[in-house]
Amino acid sequence: MTRTAAIIGGGVIGGGWAARFLLNGWDVAVFDPDPEAGRKLGEVLDNARAALPALSDMPMPPEGRLRFVDSIAGAVAGAAYIQESVSERIALKHSVYAGIQAAAPDTPLGSSTSGYRPSVLQEEAANPASIFVAHPFNPVYLLPLVELVPSPATAPETMETAKAILQEIGMFPLHVRKEIDAHIADRFLEAVWREALWMVKDGIATTEEIDDAIRMGFGLRWAQMGLFETYRIAGGEAGMRHFLGQFGPCLSEPWTRLTDVPDYDDALVDLIAGQSDEQSGHHSIRELERIRDRNLVGFLKVLKENGWGAGRVIADHDARRATEGA
Amino acid sequence: MTRTAAIIGGGVIGGGWAARFLLNGWDVAVFDPDPEAGRKLGEVLDNARAALPALSDMPMPPEGRLRFVDSIAGAVAGAAYIQESVSERIALKHSVYAGIQAAAPDTPLGSSTSGYRPSVLQEEAANPASIFVAHPFNPVYLLPLVELVPSPATAPETMETAKAILQEIGMFPLHVRKEIDAHIADRFLEAVWREALWMVKDGIATTEEIDDAIRMGFGLRWAQMGLFETYRIAGGEAGMRHFLGQFGPCLSEPWTRLTDVPDYDDALVDLIAGQSDEQSGHHSIRELERIRDRNLVGFLKVLKENGWGAGRVIADHDARRATEGA
Repeated sequence: MTRTAAIIGGGVIGGGWAARFLLNGWDVAVFDPDPEAGRKLGEVLDNARAALPALSDMPMPPEGRLRFVDSIAGAVAGAAYIQESVSERIALKHSVYAGIQAAAPDTPLGSSTSGYRPSVLQEEAANPASIFVAHPFNPVYLLPLVELVPSPATAPETMETAKAILQEIGMFPLHVRKEIDAHIADRFLEAVWREALWMVKDGIATTEEIDDAIRMGFGLRWAQMGLFETYRIAGGEAGMRHFLGQFGPCLSEPWTRLTDVPDYDDALVDLIAGQSDEQSGHHSIRELERIRDRNLVGFLKVLKENGWGAGRVIADHDARRATEGA
Repeated sequence: MTRTAAIIGGGVIGGGWAARFLLNGWDVAVFDPDPEAGRKLGEVLDNARAALPALSDMPMPPEGRLRFVDSIAGAVAGAAYIQESVSERIALKHSVYAGIQAAAPDTPLGSSTSGYRPSVLQEEAANPASIFVAHPFNPVYLLPLVELVPSPATAPETMETAKAILQEIGMFPLHVRKEIDAHIADRFLEAVWREALWMVKDGIATTEEIDDAIRMGFGLRWAQMGLFETYRIAGGEAGMRHFLGQFGPCLSEPWTRLTDVPDYDDALVDLIAGQSDEQSGHHSIRELERIRDRNLVGFLKVLKENGWGAGRVIADHDARRATEGA
């Protein structure tokens, strides 16, 4: 198999995909009509180069070759894997897929969409069987999770190939068995986001106070065990059933303002943007990215050293590379 | 000030409080009528002894003295701080407060309640001014966050004293300025919990898949920056306002099943408990606690070395201890 990936759309997410492939030794062909795409992707790549090698106990493979290509057909020609990260507009995605599949109908084609179900992406496609969702998390070059979602029309072999490739570039593909809008993780993010907007709007807490409430407490728990495993422990010796008995009834008297959607008006946007400026406007976005990446590298090293907690592990990259080298 | 804390209720949470005070050199008096309280608290203390010292670059202070006391009055006599962690039943809490304030009406009295507002806790109290919420997160001996919530009747000096004491034992007191049910963090937890129950019930994902979706992706982001700071970065060069413009409209077409509460029946409890057993039933709860604590110590060391990210820092314990020792 040729180790070349086609990246369609080179923004923050597409650029992160490009960086992850390149640093793992893949050649990458990028199509993005934005005249600034080269500069923007270069900055993501710089961040990735500063962060990712620190995770590996061995030297990284030689970096792959990066090409910018001025057509979709040119980008996907000869690629073993195609990742689409264009804006979340379904008509745009359909037209991009038409261009891709006119040139490479059988190549696995993953979409970074956070919201659309794969069966919606496949509408009108020349070859639905090669299309699926591969939803990553920013920064793509560091965070392991990728939600891999087929529709009934996606070929099982496409999924197997995609899973193997994504593991090879150090990711943790989570096979989502039933397609739903927003897959799994973003449904949680939306629930929290809505509640957070209410809190800011109602003057309960500022953006900084909300961030502190997350990062100093349950954020640290979730980063290493998630939700249910944390609660299993909270049940103590009596276990999960005991915990469920305690925490169940409160659902009928919800604390959250779950049934309301806050008016998302200029006043709320001003309030949030202003509080965010006050919270961290003294750092540039680049500086914040570096701070984030340094923390993430540290966390991932801890998890790796500890064998990824009690849960399933990420494919051991170093071991694989050592075997290949042998 | 005498460095003695009274712990009323010595379960998982109360035991965590006791361990945190003891390892930071405070004497602790515990009242808990459970005949098993001594053994249970001993196990929490063992966990804490295995974990907390690894966080400090200097030797910990000599451990304080632990006493079990057979009356509330005996436990609170002479204490500089009182922490209540009994079950979440308001009548029980009110009766416990009557007992406490008959003996020590002026001592700061924090409640570990995750749901009740402080003004509800203060009803019928002899001295409402000394009562407030001090809501910690399990494991209390490791996680820094404590939500500190006054009602209008709480004395500002009580809050100042409590804040200083909680910082001294290495915590990050988040002063919640307006009381609401469930404070801040648990409202987010409830929103996610409800959505997670739906996903398991609808067969979208198992408990393990949901945990993976959290811990390998946004959990890692939240553990070091929280929600808004993460999104500020996601906006890229265009910043928070750009991000808000992109992510706002989707609220009117919610992904989440936010308006429904799933039937919390035996079938759902069986499903979750069964999946949880399959996920990690091969580990005892003690083993899971040790795995969790090893990860948390690693994360907290990373954050400490990196200066606590871009956000506000935890009072530097080692520096304080060095100064005191000098």
